[in-house]
Amino acid sequence: MSDLEFLFHPQSIAIVGTPSNPTDVQGAGVFLDALISFGYKGDIYPVNPKVSEIRGWKTYPNLMSLPKSPDYVICCLPASLTPQLIKDCAARGVKAVSMYTAGFSEESDEGRKLEQELVSIAHQGGVRLIGPNCMGIYCPSTGLSYNPGLSKEAGRVGFLCQSGGNSLTLAFMADFRRIRFSKVISYGNAADLNEADFLEYLTQDAETEIIAAYVEGVKEGRRFTKILPQTAKTKPVIILKGGRTEAGAGAAASHTGALRSSKEIWDAFCQQVGILQAYSLEEMLDIIETFLYLKPPKGRRVGILGWGGGASVTSADDCESAGLGVPVFSSGLRQQLRRFIFGAGSSATNPIDSLILTNPSLLSQTIRMISNSKEIDVLLVYMPLAERRSLYGPEMRKVTIETILEAGKSIDIPIAIAQPHGDTPESSGLFFELQQKCLEAGFPLYSTTRRAARAINKFIEYHAWKTTHMGRQSKKVSPRP
Amino acid sequence: MSDLEFLFHPQSIAIVGTPSNPTDVQGAGVFLDALISFGYKGDIYPVNPKVSEIRGWKTYPNLMSLPKSPDYVICCLPASLTPQLIKDCAARGVKAVSMYTAGFSEESDEGRKLEQELVSIAHQGGVRLIGPNCMGIYCPSTGLSYNPGLSKEAGRVGFLCQSGGNSLTLAFMADFRRIRFSKVISYGNAADLNEADFLEYLTQDAETEIIAAYVEGVKEGRRFTKILPQTAKTKPVIILKGGRTEAGAGAAASHTGALRSSKEIWDAFCQQVGILQAYSLEEMLDIIETFLYLKPPKGRRVGILGWGGGASVTSADDCESAGLGVPVFSSGLRQQLRRFIFGAGSSATNPIDSLILTNPSLLSQTIRMISNSKEIDVLLVYMPLAERRSLYGPEMRKVTIETILEAGKSIDIPIAIAQPHGDTPESSGLFFELQQKCLEAGFPLYSTTRRAARAINKFIEYHAWKTTHMGRQSKKVSPRP
Repeated sequence: MSDLEFLFHPQSIAIVGTPSNPTDVQGAGVFLDALISFGYKGDIYPVNPKVSEIRGWKTYPNLMSLPKSPDYVICCLPASLTPQLIKDCAARGVKAVSMYTAGFSEESDEGRKLEQELVSIAHQGGVRLIGPNCMGIYCPSTGLSYNPGLSKEAGRVGFLCQSGGNSLTLAFMADFRRIRFSKVISYGNAADLNEADFLEYLTQDAETEIIAAYVEGVKEGRRFTKILPQTAKTKPVIILKGGRTEAGAGAAASHTGALRSSKEIWDAFCQQVGILQAYSLEEMLDIIETFLYLKPPKGRRVGILGWGGGASVTSADDCESAGLGVPVFSSGLRQQLRRFIFGAGSSATNPIDSLILTNPSLLSQTIRMISNSKEIDVLLVYMPLAERRSLYGPEMRKVTIETILEAGKSIDIPIAIAQPHGDTPESSGLFFELQQKCLEAGFPLYSTTRRAARAINKFIEYHAWKTTHMGRQSKKVSPRP
Repeated sequence: MSDLEFLFHPQSIAIVGTPSNPTDVQGAGVFLDALISFGYKGDIYPVNPKVSEIRGWKTYPNLMSLPKSPDYVICCLPASLTPQLIKDCAARGVKAVSMYTAGFSEESDEGRKLEQELVSIAHQGGVRLIGPNCMGIYCPSTGLSYNPGLSKEAGRVGFLCQSGGNSLTLAFMADFRRIRFSKVISYGNAADLNEADFLEYLTQDAETEIIAAYVEGVKEGRRFTKILPQTAKTKPVIILKGGRTEAGAGAAASHTGALRSSKEIWDAFCQQVGILQAYSLEEMLDIIETFLYLKPPKGRRVGILGWGGGASVTSADDCESAGLGVPVFSSGLRQQLRRFIFGAGSSATNPIDSLILTNPSLLSQTIRMISNSKEIDVLLVYMPLAERRSLYGPEMRKVTIETILEAGKSIDIPIAIAQPHGDTPESSGLFFELQQKCLEAGFPLYSTTRRAARAINKFIEYHAWKTTHMGRQSKKVSPRP
């Protein structure tokens, strides 16, 4: 049983170190801002011997002078001053120190020694360390945060992130997509508490339903890979491995002191135990959005419906390349569809290419007809780019989307929509507007059929893996059923 | 010598068929709008026996009643009426007919027969056909266009596109990125004039410096693959093959009646003869933007400079995964760089991870130092996501970009920048603004390091192929030198 729950519920927090200045984008001031902005309910103690106040808050010269012992300390001191701080923490009975301070094992051999010294002081004194070289913990439900711009709303995703910057980037990108977090843990060099500890915690955490992880290197590889298969059985795990290549591994060594692991062994392991790999933060969010907003399909047969012949070809290529099936409709279904889909330039096979997108009543009937056919497991509707002076303008598209969402609520199969983002202000503006409409109604919207297909395929892969695995616990499992 | 130049310089154009109505997004009315909007200098004759005017223009009941013979006819008639039209065209000495009409080989066996009949009438009458089932020609320099929203500015890219919809999508997306076209040819079913004819033309066309192509199936495979290697020697060719998968090929058959070719043979062929493959229209534009805005690097060694440890790791992974090299800097260069790049959390290896982005003078000196070192062939600068309440706000980023662009003008190696688009309105708004700034100054801006790496790698691949190939004409060439 993981006993890290205390990390997320401190009754009081001390922020130790210099206030931020214009060239320091994080620093003590930003940590203070974050707690204030999140309405943190416990006591906050800024600690700094050089100034009497930070952001109008009274400061204390050192930890020993605080009126009471803080549960949790955020350390923004220079590396050389950290051993004394951890000693003071031990003396005052601090339970955990989140170490923003960098300049340890990621920098030099001396740094590595200093890091080891810290861990040894902490262990002797009963203090747990997060980091060093990290942002620490963001837990909206308890007002714990390291950046005032993060969402105040709590969600169902737990994010374990070795990089502080990536944790912020993902969380900021996620917010607009209505993806919210139970806990985000930026754990940096993992000198004391490491990836295995936090994974174990998130696996058991009732507030976390999906686990995402950005990991550069593992400290307790054996333990981590022992927990992962157990985790995958209870909740989906999506991992972006930093340092997959030689160059990336070199950068990871300078970043968090991470050691390199074999890419091939890692890939095989993930497939075997049902871990989903993402190759960018954007893809990670596509997969999470799919888990949060798409009903699980019963299989991998996709029906594609849209407007644009070339786009129908590339969307079919995108689906099959991603691993999905695009079966040809039966002649019976094609005949039925031909009642609605006719005219030169249209196609009633799969993909369906038709102007029907602009006709709510026919579109709605077509969607129902496809769903009732039982010939596919998921429907992907693609829209053409919002072109200047196109007769299929933004207003008409909103009607199309509303029709799809309405039909989507009453059919058996899950439905996903792709509207091109198009790399232009005009089309991306429309994309963002429609995305909010879709998410509000509980459906995902993807910016390309390629991204849709990749994310949906991983989503299906996880459910298929889980079904196979949970159904035949005693047998060795093929990771791609 | 290709003799298709006449297609792009008609002295008069007849538009034959029904005016568009709200459910017809193209149609005769839009073709007419396009010519008017482009200020087409020749005579325009709308032909329609049912109405006396379209958009205020006098119409003629049929081709025979026109005051003089048009050079070029745009056909928007139903398929059944087209044989008579082509006969009339032959009788009046029309040189070319661009056939928007669909419902031929892509639809049914009868359609295929009708298409063959058309070709035979045309051949006998000395008329050349574009299409059917296509948009035809967009040639801004002569005012020929099929959509009023396309750019009036002519450029250096020739785009051969089997899909009318994809031709519009690419052209609209391209415009914002200041990618303009010499000619775009949407050629649909390629019943008469086909991919080989148009490729031959674009190869010889002096206005075309880069050729992009979206091809679903080839009509004259042998001739097409004989021309392509010659084309690649004179100008870069970027091809998106539609119907790469079984599902995509099925869709292509319904779309343009295309027959399937082997993916493996095609891939090997492209590598062998220096053709660059793109896997989406977005990627195609990334590659074109790179050709238009990046100086050719002398090799594939990339230096990476940016801010964010996690981002430095993923950007190195992105570069190496794409095929680029990310060499470790020599200790001499690292030592030099340490004069500017210091402090906990920074790294002076490759990638460089440093706050230096926010210091114009140090940034500028660092860029020069890296360029002078001769240790890398191209520099990729990555910026972090524009975060809410980050101290590295939009104004400071503009200063960073200006510093990079200014430094970029006076250094020997090419420089590329990646600024995250981030899938949010806020960060993509900033991305679009900075993109215009960069393109104005003649530098590319990419929305992710992944997209940057892939496009830059293909750009380098083409130049390496060309050097090897042109240098040793008699030897068999390895496509990836």
